[in-house]
Amino acid sequence: MAAVLRGSRYLVGRSFNHVSSRSMASKTPVGFIGLGNMGNPMAKNLLKHGYPIIATDVFPESCKEVQELGAQIVDSPAEVADKADRIITMLPSSPNVMEVYTGSNGILKKVKKGSLLIDSSTIDPTVSKEMAAAAEKMGAVFMDAPVSGGVGAASSAKLTFMVGGAEEEFTAAKELLSCMGANVVYCGQVGTGQAAKICNNMLLAIGMIGTAETMNLGIRLGLDPKLLAKILNMSSGRCWSSDTYNPVPGVMEGVPSGNNYQGGFGTQLMAKLISTNTKTPVPLGSLAHQIYRMMCARGYASKDFSSVFAFLREEEGQQ
Amino acid sequence: MAAVLRGSRYLVGRSFNHVSSRSMASKTPVGFIGLGNMGNPMAKNLLKHGYPIIATDVFPESCKEVQELGAQIVDSPAEVADKADRIITMLPSSPNVMEVYTGSNGILKKVKKGSLLIDSSTIDPTVSKEMAAAAEKMGAVFMDAPVSGGVGAASSAKLTFMVGGAEEEFTAAKELLSCMGANVVYCGQVGTGQAAKICNNMLLAIGMIGTAETMNLGIRLGLDPKLLAKILNMSSGRCWSSDTYNPVPGVMEGVPSGNNYQGGFGTQLMAKLISTNTKTPVPLGSLAHQIYRMMCARGYASKDFSSVFAFLREEEGQQ
Amino acid sequence: MAAVLRGSRYLVGRSFNHVSSRSMASKTPVGFIGLGNMGNPMAKNLLKHGYPIIATDVFPESCKEVQELGAQIVDSPAEVADKADRIITMLPSSPNVMEVYTGSNGILKKVKKGSLLIDSSTIDPTVSKEMAAAAEKMGAVFMDAPVSGGVGAASSAKLTFMVGGAEEEFTAAKELLSCMGANVVYCGQVGTGQAAKICNNMLLAIGMIGTAETMNLGIRLGLDPKLLAKILNMSSGRCWSSDTYNPVPGVMEGVPSGNNYQGGFGTQLMAKLISTNTKTPVPLGSLAHQIYRMMCARGYASKDFSSVFAFLREEEGQQ
Amino acid sequence: MAAVLRGSRYLVGRSFNHVSSRSMASKTPVGFIGLGNMGNPMAKNLLKHGYPIIATDVFPESCKEVQELGAQIVDSPAEVADKADRIITMLPSSPNVMEVYTGSNGILKKVKKGSLLIDSSTIDPTVSKEMAAAAEKMGAVFMDAPVSGGVGAASSAKLTFMVGGAEEEFTAAKELLSCMGANVVYCGQVGTGQAAKICNNMLLAIGMIGTAETMNLGIRLGLDPKLLAKILNMSSGRCWSSDTYNPVPGVMEGVPSGNNYQGGFGTQLMAKLISTNTKTPVPLGSLAHQIYRMMCARGYASKDFSSVFAFLREEEGQQ
Repeated sequence: MAAVLRGSRYLVGRSFNHVSSRSMASKTPVGFIGLGNMGNPMAKNLLKHGYPIIATDVFPESCKEVQELGAQIVDSPAEVADKADRIITMLPSSPNVMEVYTGSNGILKKVKKGSLLIDSSTIDPTVSKEMAAAAEKMGAVFMDAPVSGGVGAASSAKLTFMVGGAEEEFTAAKELLSCMGANVVYCGQVGTGQAAKICNNMLLAIGMIGTAETMNLGIRLGLDPKLLAKILNMSSGRCWSSDTYNPVPGVMEGVPSGNNYQGGFGTQLMAKLISTNTKTPVPLGSLAHQIYRMMCARGYASKDFSSVFAFLREEEGQQ
Repeated sequence: MAAVLRGSRYLVGRSFNHVSSRSMASKTPVGFIGLGNMGNPMAKNLLKHGYPIIATDVFPESCKEVQELGAQIVDSPAEVADKADRIITMLPSSPNVMEVYTGSNGILKKVKKGSLLIDSSTIDPTVSKEMAAAAEKMGAVFMDAPVSGGVGAASSAKLTFMVGGAEEEFTAAKELLSCMGANVVYCGQVGTGQAAKICNNMLLAIGMIGTAETMNLGIRLGLDPKLLAKILNMSSGRCWSSDTYNPVPGVMEGVPSGNNYQGGFGTQLMAKLISTNTKTPVPLGSLAHQIYRMMCARGYASKDFSSVFAFLREEEGQQ
Repeated sequence: MAAVLRGSRYLVGRSFNHVSSRSMASKTPVGFIGLGNMGNPMAKNLLKHGYPIIATDVFPESCKEVQELGAQIVDSPAEVADKADRIITMLPSSPNVMEVYTGSNGILKKVKKGSLLIDSSTIDPTVSKEMAAAAEKMGAVFMDAPVSGGVGAASSAKLTFMVGGAEEEFTAAKELLSCMGANVVYCGQVGTGQAAKICNNMLLAIGMIGTAETMNLGIRLGLDPKLLAKILNMSSGRCWSSDTYNPVPGVMEGVPSGNNYQGGFGTQLMAKLISTNTKTPVPLGSLAHQIYRMMCARGYASKDFSSVFAFLREEEGQQ
Repeated sequence: MAAVLRGSRYLVGRSFNHVSSRSMASKTPVGFIGLGNMGNPMAKNLLKHGYPIIATDVFPESCKEVQELGAQIVDSPAEVADKADRIITMLPSSPNVMEVYTGSNGILKKVKKGSLLIDSSTIDPTVSKEMAAAAEKMGAVFMDAPVSGGVGAASSAKLTFMVGGAEEEFTAAKELLSCMGANVVYCGQVGTGQAAKICNNMLLAIGMIGTAETMNLGIRLGLDPKLLAKILNMSSGRCWSSDTYNPVPGVMEGVPSGNNYQGGFGTQLMAKLISTNTKTPVPLGSLAHQIYRMMCARGYASKDFSSVFAFLREEEGQQ
């Protein structure tokens, strides 16, 4: 079967790489498409691990930093695919991914048989499946590998990658992804990486609003915010938003709530949470989504999503 | 001031107890009112620590176990107050607490000046404040000390107590409560223990439904439930309901989801979540409350509250 | 039975009144307690119908207008009860009602046997039942008769009264209420007037937010607001908020949306919607309540509740 | 300009028809694609008005009834387009519409220049816009004209059509649509018919659940359901779901609630409410959507959407 042949031929190349992986010079180049806030530090981490990088971005100025660090910059995704058989893409949304893979200068125009294409963008899983099918027609392997963690985690190579795709290719993907992240988790067939990301985002969205409501209520009932956070964190109300990213100014250091909700993960991004086509009821997830939309309408679009605490809190001078 | 006098007189007795605390015989008795599922193991733990117990319950049969272990059973809260100057109450709801304290055979009919009255029931904080005011008129001290943790934690003395009341009495309260719990947290003035409990319950209620929705969605998107739980638990979606009390059968052992949602914390109890009189907006908390009410209407009243997963999941044979 | 005796004695007086009702001079006086924005025009309408009025209010200046029109002003509810055996109360909230009926200078201190006490305040139905029981002990009849309609309807005697209480007293109540309203509806036993009011308010609260969301969505999808309102109003989306009180500026005349949401029914009042002690699930009602609370926290407390359209609409300059 | 030429040429044909419209024999044929529950009675109404019908459906048996009444049945949408220059389509969903218009045997394969294509399906407005653009390339005019009203309204020609498309074609469209409906409303450019439909559906979805919650609450508070409906319907809670399609069994005749929620508009269809790509916050609309999804998961998929009353109501034997 074609898939098997492709797979085995691919693995030959892979094992060769593996043997020689200690020698920087012998590492084959890795393509990188999308050098934004996340892609930039990710590509740098690959460079640090000795991988030659062939990169491109629609905004040429985004390429400068990695170019100075030794990356070769080319003009299009197609050219990247011409020069590298392992490519990582990190793009803002589904239409960008479709353009980069299947557009007129896209990867699939010049992709080599047996290439490994890893998309770390956060997109709709149905698009991931379409890209995988299109790649397979060209004899290439597509995996979805969205990340959990922000710019900080990208810089310090502490991202979590959630990987979907053929299990026999996972080892090869992990070799690259583990240069950029602390956790690389195999999730199942193509699209399940995105599914896991969607699930985590939804529960995060709920947990953050729930934490903001609860902290606000407790303060109104006379509790000290730091003490309340401490109690929740030793009890069954504990969650990431209460113990790691508390939305109340002054409760924790080093989080956006301590910095007027600057930085972090924008409310507008959270409001774009990909909704799914399944018929599964998600009442709290859906209401959380709507609350972030309301926040966007009221001027919170570019603040960190933990600013929901400020949104719910009584305005000065109101009863 | 009376409060100071009372306080200091009280503390005299306390320090005497403290000196002699290694000798079982010299410990003064502790009253215990309410020997239900929670009160029973709590009282046993006090007995284990050598405190003589004077107990009562509206259901005489509830008293048998602790009686066999050496507790003295009396007929009414008033009699308990006549024989013990430290009393713990563990009752189902606000009206029960009002009856036990201010009823015709209530504690306050015979309470001794300087007595320490600790209410571990989960009730409305405004009722706690009323009881404290009534106790103060009789020269006694009332503290609210609701618990987090279920029957298991009560048996193994692993409860968390959230304590509200005069700070100078906290040490005395902690002496008793630490026999029954692993954490005893001072929360502030009377009523703040209940406030902390309300807050934790609300965030728990949200987190559990959020986890159920998310697990259900992920399964529909093709993820293995155990794997999804693992991913959430290493990511920002992590919460107590995902990592300690997962609602999906088969993901964890020793939780109600593995036992057809028997045992645990009933949905009906969760649906009784005390709503507050503050004007604080709690949109997710409120929707969570409504979902538990819907579950009660649909036959889930006596199942563990994690059965929300079963409620949201597609019925067999439905599209 | 006492109730029957009281009832029949009462009806004797009533039928006498009825016979002589065309002659102003022979009408017995009616007490009126609570001369606020609503009470004032209501009392005036009773005066117009020739009823002598004995009135009081905690704010003496509220009494001036009706005094100039001929009402006799007294110092307390007790005095009103001393001089009139039919009394109407129109007060802001449950505690006011309790004070006016059962307080130290309350109606029940001097109420005459057989008196008819009609409370048009919007309060908790359980308080109505308590007042009715207290009145019955004094040989008087209490009915709850909250109104639908605002200050305009009060002035033009177009209110709707929803009346709860003994059915045999309804005719007597209707004689007075029909001077102040266009509809007087008998709802059932004491408290059902309030229940009907709660129900109408809840559905109104839902309908208004639903209309605001829908109009906002339609405008974003390219529809003209007037046209959209017209379509909804001839279709199954039709409701009072779309056809009589449309929340979008410019769609209708003579409603608060055309006047920067001034006047009308304040969001803060709507946010005070009495929640009930039943366990009935009301998910949309509950979310509507929370949205009005969020609006209060964001500065909409004193605007008309239809300003939810402005709350949901994108702020100028936001994406 | 081509559009003008096409338009004017088209209008020539149209005015000719208009002149001769009293003579049945001279009416040019109308194509009809999609003879399901709705399409069947709609096509019959066109036949009644004397229009020769050229029809097709993927299920040949669906064509029998109209064939017996004189319609000519052909094999594909392309053939319909070959024989008629005015075509109405009534299909279940967006993919069906795309297939019927742009598929390999679709209308656009054989459409004549100047043809008028009216789609009465309820679909995503972005698909309507795509179909309009594709039709325009072939020199044809596409309008979206979704309906409000069910099978009953279709049979009695009482549908409401919401029409989007070039305003100068509206008169021609109205000539046909008014044979099948009581109201034909021009909404604006292509897609606004669908937008109006989405808006009405959303407000209907909210109003029905709101009415069910309110009726259920009122009944629990002791009100008679018929009386409560009457009160709501004369007050500000009034809406189509309370006064025309009441969800409580026994309140009205001739609605699904009186027939065990058989017939009517299925919950599953309501749960498929097209969500939109705008960022408009629709918190109640979104929660309503989720509640219908929950109902589908619990066995209500094929019952009328007013069965939300039964879903919220306490089960027999539950507390």
